[in-house]
Amino acid sequence: MITQHTDVTTYLDDKRRLVEQALETYLPPADTLPPTLHEAMRYSTFAGGKRLRPVMLLMTAELFERDCRDMAFAAAALEIVHTYSLIHDDLPAMDNDDLRRGRPTNHKVYGEAMAILAGDALLTLAFQIMTDPTHLAHFDPVAIIHATRELALAAGSTGMAGGQALDMQAEQRQISVEELETIHRYKTGKMIAAAMRMGAFLAEARPEDLYAVTRYGELVGLAFQIVDDILDLEGSAETLGKNPASDLQRQKATYPSLHGVAQSKKYVEQLIKDAIQALHVFGERAYYLMQLADYMRSRTY
Amino acid sequence: MITQHTDVTTYLDDKRRLVEQALETYLPPADTLPPTLHEAMRYSTFAGGKRLRPVMLLMTAELFERDCRDMAFAAAALEIVHTYSLIHDDLPAMDNDDLRRGRPTNHKVYGEAMAILAGDALLTLAFQIMTDPTHLAHFDPVAIIHATRELALAAGSTGMAGGQALDMQAEQRQISVEELETIHRYKTGKMIAAAMRMGAFLAEARPEDLYAVTRYGELVGLAFQIVDDILDLEGSAETLGKNPASDLQRQKATYPSLHGVAQSKKYVEQLIKDAIQALHVFGERAYYLMQLADYMRSRTY
Repeated sequence: MITQHTDVTTYLDDKRRLVEQALETYLPPADTLPPTLHEAMRYSTFAGGKRLRPVMLLMTAELFERDCRDMAFAAAALEIVHTYSLIHDDLPAMDNDDLRRGRPTNHKVYGEAMAILAGDALLTLAFQIMTDPTHLAHFDPVAIIHATRELALAAGSTGMAGGQALDMQAEQRQISVEELETIHRYKTGKMIAAAMRMGAFLAEARPEDLYAVTRYGELVGLAFQIVDDILDLEGSAETLGKNPASDLQRQKATYPSLHGVAQSKKYVEQLIKDAIQALHVFGERAYYLMQLADYMRSRTY
Repeated sequence: MITQHTDVTTYLDDKRRLVEQALETYLPPADTLPPTLHEAMRYSTFAGGKRLRPVMLLMTAELFERDCRDMAFAAAALEIVHTYSLIHDDLPAMDNDDLRRGRPTNHKVYGEAMAILAGDALLTLAFQIMTDPTHLAHFDPVAIIHATRELALAAGSTGMAGGQALDMQAEQRQISVEELETIHRYKTGKMIAAAMRMGAFLAEARPEDLYAVTRYGELVGLAFQIVDDILDLEGSAETLGKNPASDLQRQKATYPSLHGVAQSKKYVEQLIKDAIQALHVFGERAYYLMQLADYMRSRTY
C-alpha cells in the first residue's frame, strides 16, 4: 500500500495553526488584570516564531496514533516555556539584545521589571496549562504527571536554564568542544528532545519507543543549534531579525566558530542521517518527522 | 477527653526541621553541573527564612489526618517558589535591594544574570518536585495534578507575579485601599492560601473543607502582609535584616501608611479572629493552626 502524503510545508503549516490556536486559548487576554503584564506576555508569545518545538510535539501524535488536537495544550506549554527563555535571555544583564525577530525585545517595550515578570509568569503558566484537569478526559493522570515533569527537567538547572548559565560563564574565555556540546545539549537539546518525550509520555509509549524519539530529538536538537550558529555567522540582520554575528562580537564560542562552516555542515549531515535512522522503527508513521529532519538541513544550504 | 498539646514553638520548630530536610533533599548539590547556578540556588534557599508557607502546608496534614512527612515534597516546592520570588524581587530592575535577612542579596553575590537564572531554575525545580513519580506511592495522581495546578495559579500572572507587577506600577502614585488590597491578595495572599489548598488537594479534601482552609489562608495571608508592613514602618535594620521603611522611601503605599498603625492593628485583630472562626469546623484538629494565627498577631504587639 502506498500512503499519500500531503506536501510537507502544508502539513507543517497545519500543525503550526493548531499551535497558534492553543496559544490564543491559553494566554490570558490583555484586558484582564494585570493588563500590562498580560500584554507583555502576549507580545513575545505572538512575535511570529517558527514554533518548531510545539510542532514536533504534535507530530509525535502520529507516531503513537493519537489525535494531535488533544496534545495541543502540551505543545502550547512547551512553546510558552521557550518564549519565557527568549525574554530573559534578551535582558540587559544577559545577552542584552534590543531586537528579536525584527521587533524590539520585551524589555525595550515594557521595561526590565515587566520583562522579568512576563518571563516568570509565562514559565508558571506553562505548568498551569499542563495540569489543567480538562486534559484528564484524554490522558491518564500519571502520563500527564510524567509529561509535566519532563518539561520541568528540560527547562531547569540541568536543562535550558543550566545551559544559559554555562553559556554566560563561557563568554570571554576559550572553551573546549566538549564544553561547547554540553552547553548546546543543556541549552537547546533538552527542550527539543522534550518535545518528543512529552508526546511519548502523554501517549504512554513503550520504553523502546521513548528511547527512539529521545535519540531523534537529541540529534535534531544539536543539528538545529549548529545550523542556527552557521546562520548567525553567515546571515544578515534583515533575514534573521537580529544583528548578524552578535554572538561572535561577544566572543561566544560556537561550533562553526571553533571548527569552521564546512566541517560544521558535514557534522549536521551526519546528525540528520542518524536522527532519521532512529525513527525507522516507526516506519511510515515517521514520514513527516523524517522530512522535518531533512528540512532542517535545507535551511543552511 | 482532653488532648495534650506540645508547646506551639516546639511544634513549629519540628515542622520547620522537616521543611529544611526536604529542601536539602530536593536542592541540587552545589558541586554538580552547573555548579555556580546550583550554588546560587542554594544560597537563597538556605538563607534562614521563617518557612511560614511550607510549615502551614505541613499543618494541613493534621486537619485531614495524613502523615505530614508525605507532604514534605509539596512544602519544599512551595518554599522554593517563594525563594525564587524573593531573588527576582530584589533585582536592581525591581526593588533594588542589597540586603535580605541580613545577608547580601543573590545578585550582589552572584551577579544579575546568575540571580535571574537562579530564580528561573528554582521556579522550574518546584514543578519538577511536584511531579516526581515517587509521590504516587502516597497520593492519588489526580490529587497531585490539582495540587501542582494550585501552585502554578498562586504563583502566576493572576497570583504572586501579577501582584508584583501591580505593585511595581503602583509606586510613585496614589492608590486606593481597594487597589492596595488587590495587590496584597495577589502578591502574598494567594501563596499563603495555596499552602492550605495544596495540602487540602493532596488529602482529597471535601469541597466544604477546601473552602474553610482557603478562607483561613486568605485571612491569615492578609493579616501577615499588614503585620509585615507595620514592622517595616516601625522596625529597625537590625531586627528586620533590611533597611527600615524602605518601602516608604520609595513612596510605596501600604495599609499602615494609608490608615495609620493603630487602625491597622485593629484590622489585623479582626482578620485573625475570622481566620480562627473559619477552622472551627475541624475542632481539635485545628488547634495548632489556630495558635499560628494567634502567634501572627504577637509579632506586632
